Amino acid sequence: MPDTLKNDLYLRALMREPTERTPVWVMRQAGRYLPEYLATRKRAGDFMTLCSTPELACEVTLQPLDRFNLDAAILFSDILTIPDAMGLGLRFEAGEGPIFDKPVRSRADIEALPVPDPSDELRYVTDAVSLIRRELNGRVPLIGFSGSPWTLAVYMVEGRGTKDFAKVKGLMFSEPDLMHQLLAKTTDAVIAYLNAQVAAGAQSLMVFDTWGGVLSPAAYREFSLAYMQRIVDGLTPEADGRRVPVVLFTKNGGAWLDAMADTGCDGLGVDWTTDLHDARKRTGDRVALQGNLDPSVLYGSPESIRTEVRRVLDSYGDGPGHVFNLGHGIHQHVNPDHLAVMVDAVREFSQKD
Amino acid sequence: MPDTLKNDLYLRALMREPTERTPVWVMRQAGRYLPEYLATRKRAGDFMTLCSTPELACEVTLQPLDRFNLDAAILFSDILTIPDAMGLGLRFEAGEGPIFDKPVRSRADIEALPVPDPSDELRYVTDAVSLIRRELNGRVPLIGFSGSPWTLAVYMVEGRGTKDFAKVKGLMFSEPDLMHQLLAKTTDAVIAYLNAQVAAGAQSLMVFDTWGGVLSPAAYREFSLAYMQRIVDGLTPEADGRRVPVVLFTKNGGAWLDAMADTGCDGLGVDWTTDLHDARKRTGDRVALQGNLDPSVLYGSPESIRTEVRRVLDSYGDGPGHVFNLGHGIHQHVNPDHLAVMVDAVREFSQKD
Repeated sequence: MPDTLKNDLYLRALMREPTERTPVWVMRQAGRYLPEYLATRKRAGDFMTLCSTPELACEVTLQPLDRFNLDAAILFSDILTIPDAMGLGLRFEAGEGPIFDKPVRSRADIEALPVPDPSDELRYVTDAVSLIRRELNGRVPLIGFSGSPWTLAVYMVEGRGTKDFAKVKGLMFSEPDLMHQLLAKTTDAVIAYLNAQVAAGAQSLMVFDTWGGVLSPAAYREFSLAYMQRIVDGLTPEADGRRVPVVLFTKNGGAWLDAMADTGCDGLGVDWTTDLHDARKRTGDRVALQGNLDPSVLYGSPESIRTEVRRVLDSYGDGPGHVFNLGHGIHQHVNPDHLAVMVDAVREFSQKD
Repeated sequence: MPDTLKNDLYLRALMREPTERTPVWVMRQAGRYLPEYLATRKRAGDFMTLCSTPELACEVTLQPLDRFNLDAAILFSDILTIPDAMGLGLRFEAGEGPIFDKPVRSRADIEALPVPDPSDELRYVTDAVSLIRRELNGRVPLIGFSGSPWTLAVYMVEGRGTKDFAKVKGLMFSEPDLMHQLLAKTTDAVIAYLNAQVAAGAQSLMVFDTWGGVLSPAAYREFSLAYMQRIVDGLTPEADGRRVPVVLFTKNGGAWLDAMADTGCDGLGVDWTTDLHDARKRTGDRVALQGNLDPSVLYGSPESIRTEVRRVLDSYGDGPGHVFNLGHGIHQHVNPDHLAVMVDAVREFSQKD
């Protein structure tokens, strides 16, 4: 790639190298809380058209960078692109969230699942990555991502949103071998998908394990973490002569941060229910930590936002390896001006003299 | 009370006294997964009539005891009885859950809130407790309960179910003093309510902190745990010449079990995301532990249910102080026969020779 990275704070922080201030980006920074996003989405017609049209995905990816002083861009896409490419028939219904018309339930369903070719069915994603990387022109690094195998399997088996995980846990407890077969296949797809994103220009990767935190410690290790380990082992380690750092994020996974760090990943996402000081102690400073302001702090007053930003920075303490972020995606009804208060406070409070 | 307790395993386990086997009961054991419950509820007409008619509340409280070998009964009621008695206008809408017509948002709202008199507006609850206690006739102990002040405040401020806790956290972050005023008043109401349940015959108490786990560690200590501490300090310690043990349960509160044990409570509920061995180590065996089978295990095969029951018993290990339970309420769509498999497995595997 011919571009020179003008701001590499994010990549350096993930490598635990010293930085002149704490880099900051925000999960779901391109999203429904931004009026400009809503306008593009309206133009696209529906959500999947927005995801699958590289020009539109690029447009919304860049929107938050034009508004806020952010230190990374993240590919605008959906975590369900892989099961969609496997032929499960993804659609979105208002008020319902994602629905798969052909959920995966039986041995035959699982055996019939193809591992999608990222250069074919998922070409629209890698095209978006290339385009965004070109348009960024070295402004900040570009993060690629995927859902974790367990998280994808939850959606694939349930077929729609769930509160009790009846079908996927029923399968997991009653037929663990079958569950492992599904997870192994999904893992192969995730590795190919993430490596294709790197080949197309992604400079860092993140694995979102949205549903790992609904498992018991033993089930988490066996059905989620083991497959994230395979992913970490299977990823392209470098691009453009530079490490492509990998961040794992298990929502409600605070208890397992040490085990997650053992995978050899570069960074861990931490939600706001774990104190960063504690997380740092438990991971023995082996990995960078990303987080962890409660997203609902942004519903508070500007003054309280600044107080809570300072609290998060203080909880991490001195030394390298912190990427500021929310502890989960930004909420839909947040006032964008409140995010600006947060981003500016991070820059102000973390600036080294 | 003239009754002699024929089965006091539950009370002894909470006092960490040796028991001949591990007692077992199930959160929401009287509930929608039971056809006999659905029949009574249909007869009642609506949910609040069921809660507020002592004869009906007694009937559904006893139903699971007639079906399963359980070691405790828990008062059938709702955690929102207190805000309802405060005049917030509770109603239930199909598919929506509880709604308060008059949510609490301002200083004036909070100052106007009365602390309900348990012998007046909440008389139907203590009447139900007395009736159930009489009907139990010493079969097993009766557990009374309340929501935690933070959990009640979430509903009181939001007015309905929420995913992002926008209003209650907005208040908490922006106007912490006001939030404390609301919590202090709610705590007074909870203490009076629980003590009235003890006076009416409850032999053990449980505080459900359903929403404590959505807070940061600092916010949890300040806005939830501090008020549960006041409750523990304010409760009637004994009835019928016997300790009335108190159990605190914060869902997703696994990281804070040691701080919860410091309150001086007798037992802690543990959800399935924390290993009981680990929980026991961290609480230094100062409290009994209640839990922690993943409720979704009951969606698996009978064989896998037995395997997972054994895993939970093994994770607690030897020694007194374990009450077997699910890690959260039983799910609505569980086959009741699967709960029988679980209960029988606990008895079989934990029986001392």
